[in-house]
Amino acid sequence: MAEDGASSDGHADLRRIKCDPNYWYPVGWSHELKRGKTIGTRYAGQPIALVRPQEGEVFALEDRCAHRQVPLSKGRVEGESVQCCYHGWAYGRSGRCIDVPYLGKGKLPNGVRTYPCREVGGLIFVFPGDPDLAASVPLPSLARAEDPEYKTRRFGRHVDCHYSFMHENLMDMNHQFMHMKQMGKMKPRFLGNDIQPAMVEARYSFARTDGKQPWGETIIFGQRRDNSAKYAHRDVMTIRTEYPYQTLRISTDGAPPVMDLWIVYVPQDEAQLTCRVFGLLSIRRPKLKGALELAWPFLVAFTERIFREDRDIVELEQQAWRELGGDHNQEVFPVINMLRDLLRRCGVAPVHEAS
Amino acid sequence: MAEDGASSDGHADLRRIKCDPNYWYPVGWSHELKRGKTIGTRYAGQPIALVRPQEGEVFALEDRCAHRQVPLSKGRVEGESVQCCYHGWAYGRSGRCIDVPYLGKGKLPNGVRTYPCREVGGLIFVFPGDPDLAASVPLPSLARAEDPEYKTRRFGRHVDCHYSFMHENLMDMNHQFMHMKQMGKMKPRFLGNDIQPAMVEARYSFARTDGKQPWGETIIFGQRRDNSAKYAHRDVMTIRTEYPYQTLRISTDGAPPVMDLWIVYVPQDEAQLTCRVFGLLSIRRPKLKGALELAWPFLVAFTERIFREDRDIVELEQQAWRELGGDHNQEVFPVINMLRDLLRRCGVAPVHEAS
Amino acid sequence: MAEDGASSDGHADLRRIKCDPNYWYPVGWSHELKRGKTIGTRYAGQPIALVRPQEGEVFALEDRCAHRQVPLSKGRVEGESVQCCYHGWAYGRSGRCIDVPYLGKGKLPNGVRTYPCREVGGLIFVFPGDPDLAASVPLPSLARAEDPEYKTRRFGRHVDCHYSFMHENLMDMNHQFMHMKQMGKMKPRFLGNDIQPAMVEARYSFARTDGKQPWGETIIFGQRRDNSAKYAHRDVMTIRTEYPYQTLRISTDGAPPVMDLWIVYVPQDEAQLTCRVFGLLSIRRPKLKGALELAWPFLVAFTERIFREDRDIVELEQQAWRELGGDHNQEVFPVINMLRDLLRRCGVAPVHEAS
Repeated sequence: MAEDGASSDGHADLRRIKCDPNYWYPVGWSHELKRGKTIGTRYAGQPIALVRPQEGEVFALEDRCAHRQVPLSKGRVEGESVQCCYHGWAYGRSGRCIDVPYLGKGKLPNGVRTYPCREVGGLIFVFPGDPDLAASVPLPSLARAEDPEYKTRRFGRHVDCHYSFMHENLMDMNHQFMHMKQMGKMKPRFLGNDIQPAMVEARYSFARTDGKQPWGETIIFGQRRDNSAKYAHRDVMTIRTEYPYQTLRISTDGAPPVMDLWIVYVPQDEAQLTCRVFGLLSIRRPKLKGALELAWPFLVAFTERIFREDRDIVELEQQAWRELGGDHNQEVFPVINMLRDLLRRCGVAPVHEAS
Repeated sequence: MAEDGASSDGHADLRRIKCDPNYWYPVGWSHELKRGKTIGTRYAGQPIALVRPQEGEVFALEDRCAHRQVPLSKGRVEGESVQCCYHGWAYGRSGRCIDVPYLGKGKLPNGVRTYPCREVGGLIFVFPGDPDLAASVPLPSLARAEDPEYKTRRFGRHVDCHYSFMHENLMDMNHQFMHMKQMGKMKPRFLGNDIQPAMVEARYSFARTDGKQPWGETIIFGQRRDNSAKYAHRDVMTIRTEYPYQTLRISTDGAPPVMDLWIVYVPQDEAQLTCRVFGLLSIRRPKLKGALELAWPFLVAFTERIFREDRDIVELEQQAWRELGGDHNQEVFPVINMLRDLLRRCGVAPVHEAS
Repeated sequence: MAEDGASSDGHADLRRIKCDPNYWYPVGWSHELKRGKTIGTRYAGQPIALVRPQEGEVFALEDRCAHRQVPLSKGRVEGESVQCCYHGWAYGRSGRCIDVPYLGKGKLPNGVRTYPCREVGGLIFVFPGDPDLAASVPLPSLARAEDPEYKTRRFGRHVDCHYSFMHENLMDMNHQFMHMKQMGKMKPRFLGNDIQPAMVEARYSFARTDGKQPWGETIIFGQRRDNSAKYAHRDVMTIRTEYPYQTLRISTDGAPPVMDLWIVYVPQDEAQLTCRVFGLLSIRRPKLKGALELAWPFLVAFTERIFREDRDIVELEQQAWRELGGDHNQEVFPVINMLRDLLRRCGVAPVHEAS
């Protein structure tokens, strides 16, 4: 199995499927990149220098000087160009080498690759695939991140697993079992699913069967709830993978969601067995002004604890995959199999060597 | 040599020989595993969950949930079953999956492998080979570990080497040279050996040629000795590999041993180039009650120092093996060559790929 | 490219070229090795034990006991021999095994390899190639290291890169750009080069275009200088690779150099992608006695900062090489291409496997 990348169910091993690069992927937060500075980031093993010139938009270059392949992100921003820190070779927005300090202008060497780049909602996106397709592929909608009715938490971290584990983790709400210490006993009820060529959606409701409502949840719902039947199965949680992004919304009685999460898992290494998470978690503001601000630190701590449990378990899944040399997932929940098919269908299968 | 696993002497490379799994191997200490708990351990790359239910005997399962291969040892013990921490799949003593909380009982998925498991003398043993053979293979005799005439130290640690280096280290008492700082100058005399299909035994006596008797030794012998001829070559040290275990006994004039060690080196990783040591070191109680208890901390410190020197050197042997890509041991001591043959004969040679 | 070791320019990949072992390479500092002691060192993956007996010259043995391949440098020096720490096998200056304490003298086993060894200028050199050539290959001249007119700093450290990156770094003075923070803006002028079968030389002068003269430079030149034309391009810096060593000299108006550096980069691992630097930096003593001693700590700190910047950048080059699977250097400076040809020509190309 490790050899041909196929898993026991005859499909290509999901953990070997690469993300389709012909989408917009965030690779940095706007606040990380000051005017006149450059930072280094990655997409699937490709080093990328993000440059914010003194004037104008952010741009993205291959993060390797054409001369000696050292990171341009260690260099200096001068006007609309970036100078390599080593011998001072300079590159403009187009990636062209525009100056070698000790060489005549007539014979400038080749430059470096550029990436289409956009900045929106506090995120810096690049398009790592075919640049000719970038204009025709829309940026994702970032849910409520810019809606004044909501307060949004921007969060991110690195997780040592293939992005598919993250999609499966979030969509399979039976894993509430794992968060019992944080959330109390919650019985999920699967309400149904929806499927489209590049989308899978699952809907759930919940009933608390034991334990008190945690404070984090109180903040999200804006109300204190007991375990009575009154609240059981009242809210609908809708989790959707719209390739390659994922969202989770909680709504009550058809009202606008009390919580709206947009999240994406950007491959870091070439094998795509590690990812960087970019998440936007929007909470609907309650009528009482300032209440959400006051409660915010508790919400942050609550979601952090949940996320840490999720990260630990997906990293254990990835570790088992490494040890076993392939995916042995024995899935019994149909919507997760639909999701797995979607990720296989929309991703890029590894190229096999001829025998 | 690295390619075909054969060493310069034409034999299969001893450091590539795997332990025969059709023996009982300890994988944990009884005191590590509380009632109603589970812990994760390993045999030769196989993760094993040891479970001590609220009632009844310890049992041992493959430490990977059938669903997503995460460790069952991270889960919860409920009655006589263990629930996976992630989605709550439950497994009984037989390894069968007995519950998936969100699935009808009619269509339960496959379970996990179990290991025959026994608990004796403070050790938890599993039988990693063919389970049908377990009943006919006896548990090892643990020397004086349960004899009230003796006080037993239970010790263990991980050593980064193939188990064969450990057997050779203990049996070749010419390595007393290395412990000179701890023990003073001791001249070993080889008294002879014994050999059977699954056993090799070497016998030695010693004479102190320089330095004082260390306190640790005084405790073991229960008497203070000078370097006079009176004590030279009086005690017989018998070291025996009874596959896959090893023992070392020191006796004076045919009396019951003053020291009796039972020890085994359990492979940890799949290549078996690391091992976990489980040792039972029994010291005969002196007539003076309480004396051994008082001296115990000194004995512990003394044996720890000796063991640390042994560990450092076998890890250097293993490192040289890695760098050289194979075993270059040039052995001149016949009993060690007998031992090497035994470990090859009783172990499992690596399967070679057809050319 | 990673496969056949050839780079994009059709040459063998420079970073896969091994150092020619038929030269004298330093592997230790004299002060590291006390009388009656032994230390372990390396050349290109070969472990070497340097032994300084109670009397007579240092000698160098393969640092693996013939018995069990553990380092002899962990052993004890006895007269003119070294005893392995494990079972006491002893080896003389010739590498022959001269004693196994528990074996008759008639049947002593094979010994270990020796290396021709010389000690000069505070350095211990070995000749890792064909020992028959050692006598005919001269030790390098160590510049001013033993000249009382100069004070010499001996420095060394490990750098995680192929030695060729170090040669290129020092010879391409356009990398002054990188040291701008330490040195101020210095415009280099290339004055010309010289080339011989085993030598490449580059000459430069400099003009300060901005910033103050750093104190370190003041110490080297023995005078305070402003940025006026008076000092521009007055000094000549001569950098030479005389295979496998490198030197850098600064002279003013044909006077003896104010600074004279001898340096070599000794491969550590078998792939030669890490090296240990041995450098002798000699500064001409000013007329005012004691002034250089007073200023010395500042000079040390200054050169350390420069060296740290150099080390960081060559390690980034090496890291890019690993990620790209080969050398993508796009060199535009002719003398560096001459240097690269020299290192390829004088070094040892990797042996290719037949297809």
